[in-house]
This record gives sequence, C-alpha cells and structure tokens, in this order.
Amino acid sequence: MKNNISIRVRYNECDPMGVVHHAVYPVWFEMGRTELLREQGSSYRELEEQKLFLAVTDLQIKYKASAKYDDALSLVTSLDEVTNIRVKHTYTLLRNEQVIASASTTIVCVDDAGNVQRVPGAITS
Amino acid sequence: MKNNISIRVRYNECDPMGVVHHAVYPVWFEMGRTELLREQGSSYRELEEQKLFLAVTDLQIKYKASAKYDDALSLVTSLDEVTNIRVKHTYTLLRNEQVIASASTTIVCVDDAGNVQRVPGAITS
Amino acid sequence: MKNNISIRVRYNECDPMGVVHHAVYPVWFEMGRTELLREQGSSYRELEEQKLFLAVTDLQIKYKASAKYDDALSLVTSLDEVTNIRVKHTYTLLRNEQVIASASTTIVCVDDAGNVQRVPGAITS
Amino acid sequence: MKNNISIRVRYNECDPMGVVHHAVYPVWFEMGRTELLREQGSSYRELEEQKLFLAVTDLQIKYKASAKYDDALSLVTSLDEVTNIRVKHTYTLLRNEQVIASASTTIVCVDDAGNVQRVPGAITS
Repeated sequence: MKNNISIRVRYNECDPMGVVHHAVYPVWFEMGRTELLREQGSSYRELEEQKLFLAVTDLQIKYKASAKYDDALSLVTSLDEVTNIRVKHTYTLLRNEQVIASASTTIVCVDDAGNVQRVPGAITS
Repeated sequence: MKNNISIRVRYNECDPMGVVHHAVYPVWFEMGRTELLREQGSSYRELEEQKLFLAVTDLQIKYKASAKYDDALSLVTSLDEVTNIRVKHTYTLLRNEQVIASASTTIVCVDDAGNVQRVPGAITS
Repeated sequence: MKNNISIRVRYNECDPMGVVHHAVYPVWFEMGRTELLREQGSSYRELEEQKLFLAVTDLQIKYKASAKYDDALSLVTSLDEVTNIRVKHTYTLLRNEQVIASASTTIVCVDDAGNVQRVPGAITS
Repeated sequence: MKNNISIRVRYNECDPMGVVHHAVYPVWFEMGRTELLREQGSSYRELEEQKLFLAVTDLQIKYKASAKYDDALSLVTSLDEVTNIRVKHTYTLLRNEQVIASASTTIVCVDDAGNVQRVPGAITS
C-alpha cells in the first residue's frame, strides 16, 4: 500500500543556505502517513478521538539532494512492515525524477496513558 | 511587572534572506510570558494541569531591524493591562541597545471546553 | 486583487491545547501572498533571483476561533493598499463560513544590502 | 570531544498529544553541534562567512520516552568519527537520568555551489 502527495516548499521551511532545513522532512513524512491513512478509509483524527495515538519510535533519513523554496515536490509513502504493535513506513521524496531524500519511520500505537496498544486494523489494511 | 530573557537565534529560525523569519517572534514572546509567570511564583504548566489555558486573541508586531543566526538577543516582557478576563503584555526585543521589534499580545483564559474564565490571580499579581 | 487558497492543518502545527498554535498563522499568510503573486504572473522566487526581498514590517492578527488538526481551511488574501515603497495585505482565514482569524501585514521591498527599494510593478498590478 | 547543553521545552514544540513533536529533536541536535563548535573556538557563523556550509546527509533517531512542555532537558553531543569529508556526531537527550532519545547525524562540508569540501580543522580538533 502506498500513496503520493504533492508538497510546495514554504519560505519559512528554508534556512540561510537557501534550502529546506533538514528538520522539516519528518513533518512532510507525517503528512504522507496522514493521507495514506485517509485513503485507507480511516483518519488519524478519528483514532485520536478514540484515544489512540501514534508515536514515532524510530526515524532514519538519508538526504541526497537539497530542495529549495517554492519547489514542487512529491512524496511517496509506503506501508512497509506491520506487526501487532509496530508499523514501519518508508518514504521517497522526489523533485521530478530526482530523489531528494529517502527515509523510514517506525510507529507504535499508545493510549492516553502512554501504554502500547495493538495497532488498529484501520492502519494495516 | 516585567522581566528580561536571553535568546540565542537558532539556525532553523532563519530564512533564505539570512534573517530570523517573522513568524518566529511570537514563539519568543510566549517564552517571555512563560518566564514572567514563573517569576510570579506560578507556572503555565500548573495552570494547564488545572485545565486553565491561555489563548492569544490579539497580536501586533512592528519589525524594526532584522536579527541573524547566532545573535544573542534580549526580550523584555511587561504586564501592561489586566482586566477580569483579559491580559495585555508588551514586548521589546533588543540586540544590545538596538530595538529589533516591539509587540503586544492580548490573552484570555479559557477552560477545556473553550469557555472564557476569570484570569487567575497568579498571572496578575 | 484577491485570491483564495486551501490549507490542511498539519499535526505539528497544533499545540497541547489541541489547536493550531498562534505563531503558525503568519506562515499561512505568507503562503497566501506567494500564491497571489503567482496569479499576478510573477513569483517571489524570481524576485529573489533579482536580489529583491520582501520584508514584513508590521503584522496584526485577531484570533476569533480555534482551528484543529486536519481541519480544511481557506485563506482569502487581498492586496489592500500600495504605495511606492509599501504594500499592505489583509487576510481572512475561514473554516466553511466561520471566521477563524483576520489579519493584515505591511511589507517593504529591500535589496540584498537591506536598502529599501521601490515596490516592483509585478506585485502591484 | 563532547559537550552538554540545557534545553527548556517551548510550548509550540509540543503537539496535541501533549509531548514534544518528533520533528523538533533535530533542531536541538543542531544547537548541540553549534555549541560544541563554539567550545572548540570556532563558530558555525564564521564558517558561513567563509562560504562553508555544513549539510546533514544522514539522521537517525531512537525515541525512547516523551518530553513535555516546560521540561528541563539536557543534551550531550559527542564528536564521534571524522574523515576528510565527513563528521559523525552522536546525541543523548536526557531528563535527569532518563534517556529521552539517542541519535546520530552525519554532516559534510560544502561550498556555496554545493561542492563537497574538506572538513575544516576547526570542527575536528
């Protein structure tokens, strides 16, 4: 399962080097996960209303080229591995055919007391 | 009542012009309010634990000079006007003697249902 | 001259109150200005390539209601007043018919030495 | 070579879960690198004035516990490995004795055309 979203680089996302600051990328990956979940017929907002929260436990990013203000990028988000308590997504950020970054995250599902919960079916199917 | 905090400009707070992005300033003003409240013997965190939240209803900023990465700034936060339901703070952001920006905010106190509450004494005295 | 852009609220734009943090709004207003300029047939990126930069000198925001994660908002940006050296925009942020915030900014045009320049025709017509 | 900086969690760095958003951590790691370089007698700002820029090529974070608004954290930044063209730092983020996150970054040095340069001696010694 995968999806593709478009991202227009915002001015404040860029730093004095004139390129997107490296801390912005995880924000975009979260947008990719949000839209992937929406396409699966659920929503992260609904999960939160059920007091289920998705916490990132692991993040890895390889930065391969820089992106600039006003660039039109596309982000491919893939559901990579699922266990009862853990979901791994992978990401490829592109400008046209050029890979800007590749990345992965692992998330777990917790309740409002921070206890790990079984991953909801909505995320995995 | 007023206080003074030191701010070291972070790299990601600056934009491709090489100066602090204008949306960063309200973040610093909130830090000023937080520390002013701490000096008054209370804390914003404690207020939240009592389900009292401070919502900004009005923000005005005059940008007079630019600040750069790694600048050591100081922010003076003053409690300006208090009524039963509203608190106005004013701010002066400085680099040495030079005024970088002057600003004001108005905040109201709301409960977790969003209903306006009387301003807690901890803020006003 | 005015335009309308859609904004989907990002998770990290929201704070522990569960609503959009008040420092995020100026970022969205800048997106409105960017798209307004694009519709006028120019682009902020091109201006920068000509070493012309737009600096915000004044910002005023009235926050009227809160916005939440995943809300679909619309932002109306209007070119309000233009002089040789200054441009004022006004903004109305909406969720359906409800006004979330109204705001205004004043920008001036500066060169890479920070000297004020005449506002380029691309912005004003 | 290592250093230790104090970090007070800002309100806007926290998300609706009430904890620090995971995209904030790389911003703090950059602050750690900045201060480590300052202790080595150089500064990132001076490097930039010489048209040398430090670009992150790899980021890995393991999130072990959550941090909250107003938490007083400490960040240990260590210079881990240095080659002619690459520097690896490792990070441990702590609240008292508790590890909040551990991480590593790899940076390369580039000129203003984006070409990789030899790592300046100021960083490595």
